[in-house]
Amino acid sequence: MARPLDFDPIIEARRQWAAHGWEEACDGMAAVTSIVRAQQLFLGRIDAVLRPLELTFARYEVLMLLVFSRRGSLPLNKIGARLQVHPTSVTNAVDRLEQQGLIKRVPHASDRRTTLAEVLPVGRELALRATTALNESVFRRPGIADDDLLVLFGVLQRFRGSAGDFSAAQALPRA
Amino acid sequence: MARPLDFDPIIEARRQWAAHGWEEACDGMAAVTSIVRAQQLFLGRIDAVLRPLELTFARYEVLMLLVFSRRGSLPLNKIGARLQVHPTSVTNAVDRLEQQGLIKRVPHASDRRTTLAEVLPVGRELALRATTALNESVFRRPGIADDDLLVLFGVLQRFRGSAGDFSAAQALPRA
Repeated sequence: MARPLDFDPIIEARRQWAAHGWEEACDGMAAVTSIVRAQQLFLGRIDAVLRPLELTFARYEVLMLLVFSRRGSLPLNKIGARLQVHPTSVTNAVDRLEQQGLIKRVPHASDRRTTLAEVLPVGRELALRATTALNESVFRRPGIADDDLLVLFGVLQRFRGSAGDFSAAQALPRA
Repeated sequence: MARPLDFDPIIEARRQWAAHGWEEACDGMAAVTSIVRAQQLFLGRIDAVLRPLELTFARYEVLMLLVFSRRGSLPLNKIGARLQVHPTSVTNAVDRLEQQGLIKRVPHASDRRTTLAEVLPVGRELALRATTALNESVFRRPGIADDDLLVLFGVLQRFRGSAGDFSAAQALPRA
């Protein structure tokens, strides 16, 4: 992994796809494979920042959602809906954050069937420290030019909207 | 996860980022988070296709690389370099594919320190079946418009090039 290849392996895969008669699928294959690879690269960088803080990106996202909430707490099912992850994943993240003393589960004031996760001061402080580090090391200089960032966001927003993540009316207009 | 949100959660996170004084990082955060989410959506679809064939995307990629190779075999270190994954991941994928009877390890003809992975006829046949299914269900209709696919590929290609995946000279010229 040290030395860069002298060709783009995804361009090479796309060439093979076309050569095998799969022309109709080759641009989709190239784009999807590029997303998978870009995610690997970014998650590697994110993990390198979060690991010393004993956080994963999934747990960091839960913490930030609580930090951003008006009361510092949210029902578990709302966390899953907002982060678009499976209830089991939310339970696992909340379990671990609670063991770490960063959040606590509290019963809902009026609805006894609902459990809230509430961020504790130490959790809030860690979330902000993690954000400072992520902003500095990843988000402020992602390695993508400013105009490319907006184009990328727009394309993926249309995709996420059409995949059902949010109602289509919310999508930004086509640039 | 069933009902779409009535807002884009990444736009909302971006708004929070700006409101907390992290304007310089908000576009990077939004783009990176979008990539992570798009990868989740695509990998979910890919896994749904590959699981009945008892393949993961990582093992599928190894199989295809062997299918595309001139001799149907490649040294393990070359597989890692081409797929840009860690040697341990290659070993794990090759172990499993060998247990499944889809490939076999063979010694290199002239260099005894090098081990090759060679795709077997049943592995080749499964790889092509998996490709037909992936092309049909994911790559031919990724849920991204044709012109967006090319734009997305271009942005991510520049990113992959600058991240050191391949030498910069190989990058397509800026559109």
